[in-house]
Amino acid sequence: MITYKLHIAYDGTNYHGWQIQPNGISIQELIQEAVHTLIQEKVHVIGSGRTDQGVHALDQVAHFRCMEAHDTTRLFKGLNGILPKDIRILSVTECPNSFHAQQSATGKEYHYKLALGPIVMPHERLYRWHVPYKIDLLLLKEAASQFVGTHDFRSFANSAHTGAAGKNSVRTITHLDVVVEGEGVTLIFKGNGFLYKMVRNIVGMLINVASGKRSIADIAALLAAKDRRMAPMASPPHGLFLVKVSY
Amino acid sequence: MITYKLHIAYDGTNYHGWQIQPNGISIQELIQEAVHTLIQEKVHVIGSGRTDQGVHALDQVAHFRCMEAHDTTRLFKGLNGILPKDIRILSVTECPNSFHAQQSATGKEYHYKLALGPIVMPHERLYRWHVPYKIDLLLLKEAASQFVGTHDFRSFANSAHTGAAGKNSVRTITHLDVVVEGEGVTLIFKGNGFLYKMVRNIVGMLINVASGKRSIADIAALLAAKDRRMAPMASPPHGLFLVKVSY
Repeated sequence: MITYKLHIAYDGTNYHGWQIQPNGISIQELIQEAVHTLIQEKVHVIGSGRTDQGVHALDQVAHFRCMEAHDTTRLFKGLNGILPKDIRILSVTECPNSFHAQQSATGKEYHYKLALGPIVMPHERLYRWHVPYKIDLLLLKEAASQFVGTHDFRSFANSAHTGAAGKNSVRTITHLDVVVEGEGVTLIFKGNGFLYKMVRNIVGMLINVASGKRSIADIAALLAAKDRRMAPMASPPHGLFLVKVSY
Repeated sequence: MITYKLHIAYDGTNYHGWQIQPNGISIQELIQEAVHTLIQEKVHVIGSGRTDQGVHALDQVAHFRCMEAHDTTRLFKGLNGILPKDIRILSVTECPNSFHAQQSATGKEYHYKLALGPIVMPHERLYRWHVPYKIDLLLLKEAASQFVGTHDFRSFANSAHTGAAGKNSVRTITHLDVVVEGEGVTLIFKGNGFLYKMVRNIVGMLINVASGKRSIADIAALLAAKDRRMAPMASPPHGLFLVKVSY
């Protein structure tokens, strides 16, 4: 058995997310089918984690295992030849069979992009959340700093996936940086792992605080409450990018 | 009579260019209709110049004249409310009736974006020309410098528009800079005016030289020949951005 590691970038606009599912075309499915076409062997392509419908990746990581060795240059060229242009294989490498894209991951980095101001530039419309109302950047930075550290993020995880008793929802966010360039803001999240919809739920809360709808003190209260129903709505998916998976 | 100046950005992917034409939806047409809807008066929206099907603009300039005064904030919000998200009005200002977006223009800046290397990142696929073969960057820069100055660019203008005798095809390119960032290259053109398809025809020649298909000396020979048929094919439209119009 041989294991191959894939680094993958995609524009999530036209897909029903990473994970194979019955009601739409997923990125995982297209890559799996492309591998099958190319090597004539059915494989499971396992990603570092799911990304939702409309979420993008600059560097998702996945692996698959197969029976025979294949030339990695041929795999790289072949997969990019088969896949649509909004999914690109950045690299294909052989790796130890002990590698598992999800279970071996030790950390992730996500970026969430905002467009403040009255309009979003046309070329960024699919890649930034437009927040046209007044945002206090100092409040945004102060709010962001409240999330850094090790917390039980149950209030910021969608309940379908963490509602069951005993599921561990403690995670560590090592960085939540706010980078401002003109009317564009990038929120840089780094941590040891993120719960389902956690980044988008945190962004929703950050914008609530930075626009004056909620207070800084509400963040600690929400973390303590461990109740998703008390947190504001998630931000939309199209501002979110999976940027890096660490191993 | 009152004249309004519009600054406009658009993603050209889904349009048949700037200029109104019978066989497809143009950007000019949509803006003209939006103004009509908003102020209930038929106007002509005149741009600084056409951009072809698939070409983008970060800052196109246009004007229209109407009988009555309108609040520019209302025009700005109203037009952006009516127009699709891939066309955005950046500003609306009242200006002297002597202003004419095309005739008053004294210079233009275009950027042409390339993606070298084996793949184009998914989010850039509609905004860069993919040149996967070997490019010599020093040759590219040397070739670019050959175009700077005042030349008769007839060999680099599409003949349907400059073939007629007596049409002046002398233009001045003040800058043609090559900016390299990783595998991305931006060619920055500044000049007093550009003939139809001139930027894309020059880019086609630059890539021919930088990839070894044509020589540096061919550039001077082509400029001297004043014959479009001797120049290589134009580069594709989707790498081209109108970035600035000077007045």
